[in-house]
Amino acid sequence: MDKRILVLNGPNLNLLGTRNPAVYGTDTLADVERVASTAAEAHGLATRFVQSNSEGALIDAIHAAREDCVGIVINPGAYTHTSIAIRDALEAVAMPFVEIHVSNVYAREEFRHRSYLSGLASCVIAGAGIQGYGFAVERLAAIV
Amino acid sequence: MDKRILVLNGPNLNLLGTRNPAVYGTDTLADVERVASTAAEAHGLATRFVQSNSEGALIDAIHAAREDCVGIVINPGAYTHTSIAIRDALEAVAMPFVEIHVSNVYAREEFRHRSYLSGLASCVIAGAGIQGYGFAVERLAAIV
Amino acid sequence: MDKRILVLNGPNLNLLGTRNPAVYGTDTLADVERVASTAAEAHGLATRFVQSNSEGALIDAIHAAREDCVGIVINPGAYTHTSIAIRDALEAVAMPFVEIHVSNVYAREEFRHRSYLSGLASCVIAGAGIQGYGFAVERLAAIV
Amino acid sequence: MDKRILVLNGPNLNLLGTRNPAVYGTDTLADVERVASTAAEAHGLATRFVQSNSEGALIDAIHAAREDCVGIVINPGAYTHTSIAIRDALEAVAMPFVEIHVSNVYAREEFRHRSYLSGLASCVIAGAGIQGYGFAVERLAAIV
Amino acid sequence: MDKRILVLNGPNLNLLGTRNPAVYGTDTLADVERVASTAAEAHGLATRFVQSNSEGALIDAIHAAREDCVGIVINPGAYTHTSIAIRDALEAVAMPFVEIHVSNVYAREEFRHRSYLSGLASCVIAGAGIQGYGFAVERLAAIV
Amino acid sequence: MDKRILVLNGPNLNLLGTRNPAVYGTDTLADVERVASTAAEAHGLATRFVQSNSEGALIDAIHAAREDCVGIVINPGAYTHTSIAIRDALEAVAMPFVEIHVSNVYAREEFRHRSYLSGLASCVIAGAGIQGYGFAVERLAAIV
Amino acid sequence: MDKRILVLNGPNLNLLGTRNPAVYGTDTLADVERVASTAAEAHGLATRFVQSNSEGALIDAIHAAREDCVGIVINPGAYTHTSIAIRDALEAVAMPFVEIHVSNVYAREEFRHRSYLSGLASCVIAGAGIQGYGFAVERLAAIV
Amino acid sequence: MDKRILVLNGPNLNLLGTRNPAVYGTDTLADVERVASTAAEAHGLATRFVQSNSEGALIDAIHAAREDCVGIVINPGAYTHTSIAIRDALEAVAMPFVEIHVSNVYAREEFRHRSYLSGLASCVIAGAGIQGYGFAVERLAAIV
Amino acid sequence: MDKRILVLNGPNLNLLGTRNPAVYGTDTLADVERVASTAAEAHGLATRFVQSNSEGALIDAIHAAREDCVGIVINPGAYTHTSIAIRDALEAVAMPFVEIHVSNVYAREEFRHRSYLSGLASCVIAGAGIQGYGFAVERLAAIV
Amino acid sequence: MDKRILVLNGPNLNLLGTRNPAVYGTDTLADVERVASTAAEAHGLATRFVQSNSEGALIDAIHAAREDCVGIVINPGAYTHTSIAIRDALEAVAMPFVEIHVSNVYAREEFRHRSYLSGLASCVIAGAGIQGYGFAVERLAAIV
Amino acid sequence: MDKRILVLNGPNLNLLGTRNPAVYGTDTLADVERVASTAAEAHGLATRFVQSNSEGALIDAIHAAREDCVGIVINPGAYTHTSIAIRDALEAVAMPFVEIHVSNVYAREEFRHRSYLSGLASCVIAGAGIQGYGFAVERLAAIV
Amino acid sequence: MDKRILVLNGPNLNLLGTRNPAVYGTDTLADVERVASTAAEAHGLATRFVQSNSEGALIDAIHAAREDCVGIVINPGAYTHTSIAIRDALEAVAMPFVEIHVSNVYAREEFRHRSYLSGLASCVIAGAGIQGYGFAVERLAAIV
Repeated sequence: MDKRILVLNGPNLNLLGTRNPAVYGTDTLADVERVASTAAEAHGLATRFVQSNSEGALIDAIHAAREDCVGIVINPGAYTHTSIAIRDALEAVAMPFVEIHVSNVYAREEFRHRSYLSGLASCVIAGAGIQGYGFAVERLAAIV
Repeated sequence: MDKRILVLNGPNLNLLGTRNPAVYGTDTLADVERVASTAAEAHGLATRFVQSNSEGALIDAIHAAREDCVGIVINPGAYTHTSIAIRDALEAVAMPFVEIHVSNVYAREEFRHRSYLSGLASCVIAGAGIQGYGFAVERLAAIV
Repeated sequence: MDKRILVLNGPNLNLLGTRNPAVYGTDTLADVERVASTAAEAHGLATRFVQSNSEGALIDAIHAAREDCVGIVINPGAYTHTSIAIRDALEAVAMPFVEIHVSNVYAREEFRHRSYLSGLASCVIAGAGIQGYGFAVERLAAIV
Repeated sequence: MDKRILVLNGPNLNLLGTRNPAVYGTDTLADVERVASTAAEAHGLATRFVQSNSEGALIDAIHAAREDCVGIVINPGAYTHTSIAIRDALEAVAMPFVEIHVSNVYAREEFRHRSYLSGLASCVIAGAGIQGYGFAVERLAAIV
Repeated sequence: MDKRILVLNGPNLNLLGTRNPAVYGTDTLADVERVASTAAEAHGLATRFVQSNSEGALIDAIHAAREDCVGIVINPGAYTHTSIAIRDALEAVAMPFVEIHVSNVYAREEFRHRSYLSGLASCVIAGAGIQGYGFAVERLAAIV
Repeated sequence: MDKRILVLNGPNLNLLGTRNPAVYGTDTLADVERVASTAAEAHGLATRFVQSNSEGALIDAIHAAREDCVGIVINPGAYTHTSIAIRDALEAVAMPFVEIHVSNVYAREEFRHRSYLSGLASCVIAGAGIQGYGFAVERLAAIV
Repeated sequence: MDKRILVLNGPNLNLLGTRNPAVYGTDTLADVERVASTAAEAHGLATRFVQSNSEGALIDAIHAAREDCVGIVINPGAYTHTSIAIRDALEAVAMPFVEIHVSNVYAREEFRHRSYLSGLASCVIAGAGIQGYGFAVERLAAIV
Repeated sequence: MDKRILVLNGPNLNLLGTRNPAVYGTDTLADVERVASTAAEAHGLATRFVQSNSEGALIDAIHAAREDCVGIVINPGAYTHTSIAIRDALEAVAMPFVEIHVSNVYAREEFRHRSYLSGLASCVIAGAGIQGYGFAVERLAAIV
Repeated sequence: MDKRILVLNGPNLNLLGTRNPAVYGTDTLADVERVASTAAEAHGLATRFVQSNSEGALIDAIHAAREDCVGIVINPGAYTHTSIAIRDALEAVAMPFVEIHVSNVYAREEFRHRSYLSGLASCVIAGAGIQGYGFAVERLAAIV
Repeated sequence: MDKRILVLNGPNLNLLGTRNPAVYGTDTLADVERVASTAAEAHGLATRFVQSNSEGALIDAIHAAREDCVGIVINPGAYTHTSIAIRDALEAVAMPFVEIHVSNVYAREEFRHRSYLSGLASCVIAGAGIQGYGFAVERLAAIV
Repeated sequence: MDKRILVLNGPNLNLLGTRNPAVYGTDTLADVERVASTAAEAHGLATRFVQSNSEGALIDAIHAAREDCVGIVINPGAYTHTSIAIRDALEAVAMPFVEIHVSNVYAREEFRHRSYLSGLASCVIAGAGIQGYGFAVERLAAIV
Repeated sequence: MDKRILVLNGPNLNLLGTRNPAVYGTDTLADVERVASTAAEAHGLATRFVQSNSEGALIDAIHAAREDCVGIVINPGAYTHTSIAIRDALEAVAMPFVEIHVSNVYAREEFRHRSYLSGLASCVIAGAGIQGYGFAVERLAAIV
């Protein structure tokens, strides 16, 4: 059976493609899933997709990954900058993860420059649009 | 059909009137809804009321407002100071909103002086008690 | 005889309506006075209007309010952020006051986010345009 | 009937005993409940146990404690450092609480040194492992 | 002819004795003048008293002191913490001055702990009530 | 008729030439006016000179410039570092201005390194003595 | 022979019970010793008690513990926040210690929130009154 | 019998008159005692003088003052800026004290601008040389 | 003719593969060039490789890219955190660039968390090892 | 023989006129040299022009000025904000220099507001375009 | 008679050689004295050695050096970072001193990077083990 | 064959002896080389001397040391405070180095108190003049 990776999208990413296209582009969450699936399949990886606006639900999803996943691609949305609990969840499950942002967060408000997750991530990718999900999966494939 | 506005109350506001009356007064959430409804009706606006202690549920409610609302009155409670995700949700739905606080947050602890939402709000009202909800609705009526 | 409130406007507000309309709108100080008077009359309050560009003159006006006023609506303009002396004057006269800003100061430069007055104000209203003066008077009417 | 206390565990504590044993030890949440129950019974106190990864659910549980509890033992996990909403909930229910951490948070990352709750707590215990829950219950027994 | 000293009182000190007696006591500005005069006469010094709420007027008074004064006792009120222009005026007239505060400013709000004048003063006295003016005059008498 | 520029000097500049010559030199305000007039005439510009120690009076003068001036040379003295109100006045009249300091403020106390005006100025000149007024007028001549 | 622990009390703890009872309660240092002795005996531990107002004497006492103690309970009083030398002494003797405060230091002045010792402590207990000494001894008993 | 005050001098004040006369003058500790005694006698107060370079010894002396003193004049020397323990001792004995510095500490290094004691002092006097001890005694006489 | 991209490596990257392999891995600069070339060829892009330890030489290389390149992949090494001049050079040549780091800089020293370049970059990739150069080229291929 | 001045231009100034004309205008480095030469000749000064993108080369040029120059006009470009080494070089050669910026650096990013050189400069000119070089030369002519 | 130098060792240095050998090595205080004596004798200097854990005792020893010493080698241990009183003592005795640390304090915790003494020292040596005492004596020999 | 050490001098050290003798003394770089050579020979070490004003050239020299050196004495001049690239170079070559400054950098401007190198150095020596190079070589001899 294939190894599986969790592709986790945080708050407001359900609106991708409809929200502020100048910043986020017009690709949707479905496009994200397609890009990630394609890359995963190319490396013999299965995928599970979860999106939630709730910090607690994201933590639950990370915990659940212990059962059947070998790595995580996470776009934590705004929780990047405020959630130590998600950081702790990722640390607790002790599997490699890639942090991905559709837009270049470093080119935006000061409060988006700090990530509670980056210090634990294997790899951080920002500003590559949804193409970045493909890179993230490829990187995970190389290290899991 | 009337335009509708969402009146959104955040964490602990379900306890309004029972919590620390010296700071918050004795009016309850039902009183808030009455004040807001009255003001809305006076301007031909319909209302929807949502209260939740969950950040994710508040985001969901904001997203849902895209369907049938033209503006938002939000008392984000303590999430004012910690939630970039709610800020992003408000930005994503791209409709005018008024930020309202029952107490004067600027007269309280230092950590209540920063709001992640104020920078995007049309208008900010603090310390007017539940009367402030009336002002907020009136302001929204003037600009939607 | 009616109770009276002081409506005090600080530096540069004499230019209201001519200065940067994108931020402040096209309403003038005369419009402000009309809005405030109307609201005051509706609640049986008399008004006195003072505008000055001088910090000292504003303090003098606040002191003078001790003689015949029961509350103050103050738009301190830029002195909001720099004048401890006006804060002290308001504290010294010991009557309720509402702090009002035509624009949403929290959406502007960082140095406009700190107010020396908000910590003492009954209520703070920002970004409601000159309509905010009406709200301020109404709030004062409710508490004096 | 016995007085009851709420023993509330926050995010990731469901993984206790499996997560990073070098920091948290090998005791599980079941062990925590046993330690707390034993101490409570010794002082004639009933207990209710709640664990959740969701900030909102924790707030709901605190609110519910108003019905039938006299005090709270809370291990807020990572929400210690980020949740003003939980602080507000604890303040709103106005009953004594003890803040407890399994590990010594002061010996860890800088961002774990600030607690939004400690300023309101009766007592703070950190680094005593799950034995700390016993101390917390004993302390609560002494003051409720 | 006697040497003269300027005794300069800044904003809100005209209200001394009526403002917040718990902080400032019940002595008035007239009492201040009496205390200072008595001390000055005892040391063969003439006095001039100026009080103003205007930063500019205080600067003018300091400039005028160049004509006929040998030292200054200044209670700058709230301008202590905000006026570099008064500092510059005192530096420009190049005569010794004593900075005096009726209340202990160091026991009050953080923003009252910084003085733009103290770095240039001969002596700083805070919290001695109006008795402090007597000390200030005595000190000036010793050094002019 | 010639275009006119306002040459505005702030607090303590009336003492120029008598105050701390090691820092400010021995040239007086009359010398400043001579230098500026000469430069202005050479470019066919009329001048108006205002000096005041009062923040409010400086704001009034800036407002008045709207009537008959095309640009401003301003030496704001110590108000450089403390007056947002003067900044707002300059922004409100919406004409180009040059900020000039006789001494090199960047070589002095830390609190002189921040200017509320520089962010809006066309040009900033510091440390060129009164010759700097000539440069300021020349620059204004080039851009009005 | 029993293992021994050092119970070390820092500056001003000799006044316990007489100093500010609202903060520290009415129990005295003798009560502290009784509580600690009782807990120690229950676990077969001997005790030595030292109290001093001198930083140097506290360091000497810590050094002396190398001879015959297996752990330390320390209430460092105000030295908590200022003494790196005591930290170094505790690190040098390399035995487990519990840091204990009678009051909840996190609920007091900002400068009491930083501890130079907590980073090295096994366990930190604050706000449990003198009962905390009992907890501290119990914890030490569990780990030495 | 006369009331007694404690006059307490901290570290390095035994060298007064020999240390850096440009900053501290040529008066010695004996001169200090003479000035303070004279002022005390004039108000019917007895005095006790203590000087020590040891923080612990200063705390001991403050504690001892509980027996027979009604107030304290303290020149804490460098401990002003570093000793929370002395602050706690002064708070614990709960009698009025005046903080005095021979030099103007506010005109010296940045780290001398913060005092742990000023927030609790009745009165703070700095830069009046040893004459300041006389003022301090006079002030104490007025309030004990 | 193919479009060309510049692949620019900054200080110490000539030692890649020999320096601290635990952090940087064992791949060499030659491997980097191979990875980047392969990716570029796959998208019909030519490459030019420059490595230098000199800030000035890196600026020169960026300037030179104006002649014949359409985009830049830059690993600025330690200049990431200190060079505003390289930032200015990249802004001046006004072509898209991707910032790449072999290691995850956000997991290292605090001073490596700030990048002067990220604010202008199209995309930032960190921690993907030399595989990241491939991603960078692919991204550039997608947007030039 | 004429006295000579060095006109030194730092990184990216070789691109002047081609880089971001909205900020820097369309004048080129050749125009700068023409403006400076003309001003220098008018005052009987010879000139030497150096431009480099290398910090080390700029230091070398400053050192070389010891041989045959009497003053320096320096536009340090981005090294203004990062180079202590250039500051040291200017201090070492101990001749007057004027710091010049084509754009108004104070109106740009926060990190452009600090200059390591301004504290040593005779004069600082920013935002006068290339006309500023003329002013700089004139100022130097007045003081060398 | 030989000139004498004081070699002063602060808190915890009595444990040298037994404390954390990985940081401090295995040399003891006796070894330190031997190294320093040897170096001193080679330059015709006598030595006095003092070690104390008490800040007050260290100050006393510095004061005593006025009688018969010409310079001081001081390893202030942890008081380096917290004692302004020792700084003042060193300044008061007005003789050259060398500050020495056995370990490289700059490679340790952030709070060990600030020294209250370095600003007054002739020379600072850190990380040379006990060999550094020899260097310190040699340096003192060169300048006394 | 002898082991060799690299003695590396950074920007402006070529001017040693001519630059600001009050701070740096009158010894020249040739004197430095003589002192270092003498010390090296006494310990059977060969030397190579490099001085450059270019950060890149210093990095190149450090890299070159890998070929034939066993340790480095580095006086990084102003790059001490600004160059992470030199830090990285020293870390990359993984040999012990001593950081040396002729003057006591801790007694100078605040921005000279931070060193990017000290955290990696074996030993730091500042303020011993050129004698410090001798100490540095001796220390290196003891550890290589």
